[in-house]
Amino acid sequence: MAGYPSPMNATPAIVLVSGGLDSATVLAMAKADGYLPHALTFDYGQRHDVELQAANTVCESLGVALPKVIQLDLRAIGGSALTADIDVPKDRPDGAEGIPITYVPARNTLFLSYALAYAEAAGAHDIFIGVNAVDYSGYPDCRPEFIEAFETLANLATREGVEGRPIRIHAPLVKLTKAEIIRRGVALGVDYGLTHSCYDPVGGLACGRCDSCTLRRRGFIDAGINDPTRYTDSA
Amino acid sequence: MAGYPSPMNATPAIVLVSGGLDSATVLAMAKADGYLPHALTFDYGQRHDVELQAANTVCESLGVALPKVIQLDLRAIGGSALTADIDVPKDRPDGAEGIPITYVPARNTLFLSYALAYAEAAGAHDIFIGVNAVDYSGYPDCRPEFIEAFETLANLATREGVEGRPIRIHAPLVKLTKAEIIRRGVALGVDYGLTHSCYDPVGGLACGRCDSCTLRRRGFIDAGINDPTRYTDSA
Repeated sequence: MAGYPSPMNATPAIVLVSGGLDSATVLAMAKADGYLPHALTFDYGQRHDVELQAANTVCESLGVALPKVIQLDLRAIGGSALTADIDVPKDRPDGAEGIPITYVPARNTLFLSYALAYAEAAGAHDIFIGVNAVDYSGYPDCRPEFIEAFETLANLATREGVEGRPIRIHAPLVKLTKAEIIRRGVALGVDYGLTHSCYDPVGGLACGRCDSCTLRRRGFIDAGINDPTRYTDSA
Repeated sequence: MAGYPSPMNATPAIVLVSGGLDSATVLAMAKADGYLPHALTFDYGQRHDVELQAANTVCESLGVALPKVIQLDLRAIGGSALTADIDVPKDRPDGAEGIPITYVPARNTLFLSYALAYAEAAGAHDIFIGVNAVDYSGYPDCRPEFIEAFETLANLATREGVEGRPIRIHAPLVKLTKAEIIRRGVALGVDYGLTHSCYDPVGGLACGRCDSCTLRRRGFIDAGINDPTRYTDSA
């Protein structure tokens, strides 16, 4: 298609896509950098299929093939409000300390491990992930040192790494504020109305009060950009 | 039960169990060291359910609870003779170079990632894996430097690591020969007749000629211990 790099010439890259704001931005960035994105997403017993649908819609809107969906068996080992029957915390104060209950054990380690397997099978050497250490809600596996450690591991774990064709883990959002992420995405044509961030949506609307909604709302305000999200208190 | 440490007092440990010779030995070693093993195994589209059955039988024989089985979606991303329709290589010469076609992309990275998630959810800080870098058939993710890199990653990725309760990855076989592994296991009462190593069994019998069978047969010979394995040419 005119306007897209040829799949025969573009460098393949695995892009982890959740349907959320951050990963939609990363997908647009990978494409703008000339990569041919292979999107990968996960079904890990989320309570809301809306996330998986958003991942599809985001890919379609950016002209990227629909994501491969990996079934993750996290519910069996438990440990999170996102996959078990624990209430999602609301209205946490600014600067609330500790790791929130919405933390999924080893989630980004698992996601990157599957991305690594897919990269190796597909002959890709580049993996993109939308982790962010600024507005990061306290998750340990969203920090630059985690990403660096995974890249080191990847190059010891795989045929490509061992044979001198290094794997690179790209985390282009890791040091950006939410407002900076939103400005980048808008400049690249991301339609954030298609993305989904809420941990606890009600009737298709974002709750507006969980950690994820709080960060998202503030990001649009700080960026001075109209928030297309439909919240329960603004719909 | 008399003779077993009390589950209330023993330190929990996640033990990766495949049904093979190495992981059976590791399970016995973890138990002998006083841990309460939580066995974890994977169904990744293996062509032979005999592996999963062997994992159960090995646990039963050592008085360990049956393993939790994680469904791994590796077939979807392809890349190995163990999960796809590619012939298993036979009678490879000693010292054959390169990484064999039986390599599964990112396999031990994925296995350890799930073990890490399970450890975090179960409150365990110890993970045991039966990798071996001596008779290791050329897999990059069986080397000590891979294990060390994963331990570093684990302590950056998790609540426990971040909060100062480090995760330890135990790979007690990593520098042992197959003969040494077999001698340890026999001393600990492992019944190797229950274990399964063959990549390409025929009618319930081990082929005797794939890399895994070759290493196993030679290990028993070198250890001076009778090989209880039923091979197609010795049954």
